[in-house]
Amino acid sequence: MPRLSEDELIATYFAPLAGPAGLNLRDDAAVLTPLPGQDLVLTKDMLVAGVHFFPDDAPETIARKLLRVNLSDLAAKAALPCGFLLGLALPPDWGTDWLAAFARGLGEDSAQFRFPLLGGDTVKTPGPLTLSLTALGHVPRDTMVPRPGARAGDRLYVTGTIGDAALGLRVRLDAPQDRIWIAALTPAARTDLLNRYLVPEPRLGLAPALRRHARAAMDVSDGFAGDLAKLLGLAHLTVRVPLAAVPLSRAAREALHLEPGLIDTILTGGDDYEILCAVPPGECVGFEESALALGMRVSPIGEAESGDALPHFEAPGTVPRVYPQGSFQHF
Amino acid sequence: MPRLSEDELIATYFAPLAGPAGLNLRDDAAVLTPLPGQDLVLTKDMLVAGVHFFPDDAPETIARKLLRVNLSDLAAKAALPCGFLLGLALPPDWGTDWLAAFARGLGEDSAQFRFPLLGGDTVKTPGPLTLSLTALGHVPRDTMVPRPGARAGDRLYVTGTIGDAALGLRVRLDAPQDRIWIAALTPAARTDLLNRYLVPEPRLGLAPALRRHARAAMDVSDGFAGDLAKLLGLAHLTVRVPLAAVPLSRAAREALHLEPGLIDTILTGGDDYEILCAVPPGECVGFEESALALGMRVSPIGEAESGDALPHFEAPGTVPRVYPQGSFQHF
Repeated sequence: MPRLSEDELIATYFAPLAGPAGLNLRDDAAVLTPLPGQDLVLTKDMLVAGVHFFPDDAPETIARKLLRVNLSDLAAKAALPCGFLLGLALPPDWGTDWLAAFARGLGEDSAQFRFPLLGGDTVKTPGPLTLSLTALGHVPRDTMVPRPGARAGDRLYVTGTIGDAALGLRVRLDAPQDRIWIAALTPAARTDLLNRYLVPEPRLGLAPALRRHARAAMDVSDGFAGDLAKLLGLAHLTVRVPLAAVPLSRAAREALHLEPGLIDTILTGGDDYEILCAVPPGECVGFEESALALGMRVSPIGEAESGDALPHFEAPGTVPRVYPQGSFQHF
Repeated sequence: MPRLSEDELIATYFAPLAGPAGLNLRDDAAVLTPLPGQDLVLTKDMLVAGVHFFPDDAPETIARKLLRVNLSDLAAKAALPCGFLLGLALPPDWGTDWLAAFARGLGEDSAQFRFPLLGGDTVKTPGPLTLSLTALGHVPRDTMVPRPGARAGDRLYVTGTIGDAALGLRVRLDAPQDRIWIAALTPAARTDLLNRYLVPEPRLGLAPALRRHARAAMDVSDGFAGDLAKLLGLAHLTVRVPLAAVPLSRAAREALHLEPGLIDTILTGGDDYEILCAVPPGECVGFEESALALGMRVSPIGEAESGDALPHFEAPGTVPRVYPQGSFQHF
């Protein structure tokens, strides 16, 4: 397959995705005139082949996941997307077909989310494909929703459903001990779970409700139990979550019915890219109504309480589940 | 050596480098209130161990090079540093000693250049250490010096000296065919060349002169001849550069005297991190005076002429040297 120089590669695949601030990717830098009265919100995520995605995933979905995990961080801060810078370290075996497909996926999502490419860097690596994206968003001055700041009595909400991506990864890995429940899943459930792992859905639409009603928020990406502990731990808070309050998709409920032990994967598996937020009691009705009006599903999962205990997940007639960081353990 | 979690690693080594906008690196994102009347300038560079630096280079100098190659891009746009986001993909054999030294180098330069850490991401990689940095700078509204825009008759200037880093890399590589001239270098020259390769000097001090007098500018990082061709090619211009006009350090002159063939390395080797700019004839006196007042060395290297030929490097009694992209060739 013919090799392109860095300049040819940029001109062919990436310049078409550049917004006006990207100066057609022909300069050393991008220039952005900040919108008056707005703060900039900045975030960066790296993805490594074989660690964060499968090297043989479709290049389009790798590109879309890269954009969306960063958009999810912006969404959790109630920010709207401005644009992004892309870093691409390409292994020796990349080909132009791969790059064309990657740029196609990137371009589709860049257009869908009005999130233009501003600049970046393309280098060679003897290692695995490594992607780095810096996302810029904006919020009206002083309205970024922070991660710290939850208080005792705040109600905790989460968007969408939890655990689908982690189950999708297990379906994808298809380990021998999982084959019975995977084989018993309906084809629709299997597809839904796989898709949630491949292409997350950033909850950007919730921004106005978050900004108006939430006291603290973060995106759930490293596992629901652990991220909940992070949000609350910053404020010396804890929560008891009824397991029945954790929002599950139809596909996740189907899997859990087949294999009840999957609850631990659901609660700790990661890659959810949902938003977790704390809403003061007096704002809950307003938040729920606003989310409904925006077409965003939000589920209350419990109330923050003072204390340094890890979140407890409770179900009638069973001992509570608690997940110390990085692992899990049943009491 | 004990391993730290990502959160511990960030809290221990990187949170101390974070400016107020970085929110102590405990949030999903950084928030930046743009300075009134300023544009943001954004650039990104990736460095891969074994490609852009030696894996056994001192971690402090790897960190400093990473910061400085990005600061050089800002400098070439006449921008002043605001802050940066850092992406770090760590191989399995990283240790806390390495990270502590890396953070120390990063912290020293971050303080020296008033360039705080705003955020970033740390991941694991089965491949080589991979670093990604997104730099933010600012310029007064509409004063970023672009790369395109040079015109016939503009005088071309370059800061500092050319070729030192490329010669430093040859000293470092110490290939058999280079050993005679390397052994004949004075120790001071050898050290100077090695240091220029390890730690570039971003020419941030030139910003006021560039902004006021230059029509176009870029940083010289991929080789002087090729970057000159890029700047001029965008405007269908060319130049004849007297070899005697290319500014050389004492160390480079010493090497060139020992081995005249090194002129090709000097002109094409890269890693200079100097600024190349085009100044209209009526602005040249002002530019030179302003650079002098700022303590910045600038050297005129020739005058832009209409034409699509590659830049010619000329010396009396020899055929001109021309370097087609990515390689070189003598006529």
